[in-house]
Amino acid sequence: MFAEIITIGDELLIGQVVDTNSAWMGQELNKIGIEVLRVVSIRDREDEIMEAIDTALRRVNIVLVTGGLGPTKDDITKQTLCKYFRTELVFNEEVFQNIKRVLAGKIPMNALNKSQAMVPKECTVINNPVGSASVSWFEKDGKVLVSMPGVPQEMNAVMKESVLPKLHERFHTDVIIHRTFLVQNNPESVLAEKLDAWESALPECVKLAYLPKLGVIRLRLTARGKNRTELEKTLDTESAKLKNILDNDIFSEEDIPLEIIVGDLLRKNNLTVSTAESCTGGSIAARISSVPGCSDYFRGSIVAYSNDIKNTLLGVSAETLGKHGAVSEETVTEMVKGAMKAMKTDCAVATSGIAGPGGGTPEKPVGTIWIAVGYKNEIRTYRQETNRGRSMNMERAGNNALLMLRDMLK
Amino acid sequence: MFAEIITIGDELLIGQVVDTNSAWMGQELNKIGIEVLRVVSIRDREDEIMEAIDTALRRVNIVLVTGGLGPTKDDITKQTLCKYFRTELVFNEEVFQNIKRVLAGKIPMNALNKSQAMVPKECTVINNPVGSASVSWFEKDGKVLVSMPGVPQEMNAVMKESVLPKLHERFHTDVIIHRTFLVQNNPESVLAEKLDAWESALPECVKLAYLPKLGVIRLRLTARGKNRTELEKTLDTESAKLKNILDNDIFSEEDIPLEIIVGDLLRKNNLTVSTAESCTGGSIAARISSVPGCSDYFRGSIVAYSNDIKNTLLGVSAETLGKHGAVSEETVTEMVKGAMKAMKTDCAVATSGIAGPGGGTPEKPVGTIWIAVGYKNEIRTYRQETNRGRSMNMERAGNNALLMLRDMLK
Repeated sequence: MFAEIITIGDELLIGQVVDTNSAWMGQELNKIGIEVLRVVSIRDREDEIMEAIDTALRRVNIVLVTGGLGPTKDDITKQTLCKYFRTELVFNEEVFQNIKRVLAGKIPMNALNKSQAMVPKECTVINNPVGSASVSWFEKDGKVLVSMPGVPQEMNAVMKESVLPKLHERFHTDVIIHRTFLVQNNPESVLAEKLDAWESALPECVKLAYLPKLGVIRLRLTARGKNRTELEKTLDTESAKLKNILDNDIFSEEDIPLEIIVGDLLRKNNLTVSTAESCTGGSIAARISSVPGCSDYFRGSIVAYSNDIKNTLLGVSAETLGKHGAVSEETVTEMVKGAMKAMKTDCAVATSGIAGPGGGTPEKPVGTIWIAVGYKNEIRTYRQETNRGRSMNMERAGNNALLMLRDMLK
Repeated sequence: MFAEIITIGDELLIGQVVDTNSAWMGQELNKIGIEVLRVVSIRDREDEIMEAIDTALRRVNIVLVTGGLGPTKDDITKQTLCKYFRTELVFNEEVFQNIKRVLAGKIPMNALNKSQAMVPKECTVINNPVGSASVSWFEKDGKVLVSMPGVPQEMNAVMKESVLPKLHERFHTDVIIHRTFLVQNNPESVLAEKLDAWESALPECVKLAYLPKLGVIRLRLTARGKNRTELEKTLDTESAKLKNILDNDIFSEEDIPLEIIVGDLLRKNNLTVSTAESCTGGSIAARISSVPGCSDYFRGSIVAYSNDIKNTLLGVSAETLGKHGAVSEETVTEMVKGAMKAMKTDCAVATSGIAGPGGGTPEKPVGTIWIAVGYKNEIRTYRQETNRGRSMNMERAGNNALLMLRDMLK
């Protein structure tokens, strides 16, 4: 069963907003056996919306449309859908009551909000529990088109609560199963060479994809067919062969963020963690604390962007800073010890480096980042060297720090 | 002049990767007067790639293709382009030398890397300064198709160094000018009501768009036409009217992140800042430190996720924590004072709250976040209350903290 996603909004085309909805929808649709064939982003123009809808409905059975449902004049999706499906807007009391409920205590209802209670006549209207734009579910010649709000948290809510269950019920679909392996220590071409013979011998129903990102490669095996048990068996066989080839380079068999992998490990071993960050500026702490329930193991962080905070709060000696500089193995070693001591944690990670774009020297060019991880009396250090720009240097340092911590705790 | 972007890769459709390339390309193309009409994401399948290319080339004069150029078997863009343009792959010595240079000292060259030196015969080949996949520039019937790597930093590099200048030179285009205003204190529908009369009277060549995000609304005015001077004059007039209506609710006339706005203000006033974060977990520090050159004003952060770090490192009294709890005006007030003292800064921001999904109580439901900002002896506090999920609650708290700091320093 195939779907197409149409995202509507000038802001997507001129690049003021990154479309994160489609990726989320692709993941969720896959889980219920619906494959997204295409994502099309278009402007808020009637003729372009009409054409995109018409082409999509000719290609696939399910078309999911997001965006263009706000109360303002630039949003025309609802009106255009009425034109396409030859219907009209009518006032819906239930939607109106929902808008009142959603806005209650936040902002006063005005004429624009009220206009959001006007919905297409010939469709199933689904309430939006977290916003004022409702969902329209159209059926035509056995095909389905669903129009949803573009605000991510509203789209997520209506998809989860209504649209996904309704699609699951309405269509009967091929089974699609993904298995993802997170791999460290291998650049893409080296990995591809290692896997060449195995990959060439993969059965027809299985596809392999490489997704490299800042020191980590995700390998994704996708099986597609009618019989779930058979597909699972095939994937078990191929996964076993893969694990045999890559061994310890596979650090996870689930496609989840490193901060969750490390968090689970800390919780399981009843350990606490802290961070001492210079060039990563708190971004590792932010990653760790992005995980719900991290208070079980995360105690805190000292972001020592300036050198005297390295000294006063983390206890890095003035001598070390003077002799070896802030970007040195000696400094990150003292930082990681200082973090464990000041925040009383079993383990810690520390970073100090030149994230860029400025600040490089011949001995320590931009991209040089020292990383240390500590667990009780053991300290491990690593010098990261590639320069891929400030934000990626920082993210890569976070990946490496968390990978090192994981290896240490294993 | 219109362009269409085609992004190729199964990973985009199943949602394992968010397409950030298109937004960036949309912004850059706009700057040289090229408007993106459509973004299409498709799978790594020959027939789908052929169809998407063909349709796009019939609709617009410029087609930009990203992805599918890696050394692995799932990548088939290059071969498919050869088929479409009826040409073949040939070995290119210059590209081969570039691949050797790019890989030097990183990974050993293997057969797969070498295969990347095979490029389409009938096209202009452009070297990729930061990666091993080269760029192919095809011309046909006065139209241009450019195939680029999908890795964001490689695409950015080849666009900036080669593709954008070449497109600018090759085509003569309409002038497009955007002006963006960042607005606080107004929900979207309230703002739309305030602006209704002015918006209705906007001249034909000017369009207005609303882009709301977590407490901030970006208003974008777009003018399009032949004469830059005239368009600028029209935008000046309309901007003046807008500023007259919204006054102090406009906090920036540039579409730049809050952390840059606040950073510039701190630098201009020669002030230093630190953060004391509980529920935001270092994410405000990470935002501040994402800005190159922030060492001019950012000294550091204490992420006090656990209560005893609030006490030991930030000096929040045990009495305050016991009597009012960690999520209270009293606690964030002591936290912000503690940050200024411990890190010797002129100002600071502090947060403590229940980011969710767990941990709420009837008095302090999930989403309750206390924020304090301090500047010398003045402290301001705010209780944030809406619950939009953990990550958005945290991001919104960061927005509010930075907006409060900006207002205080103004």
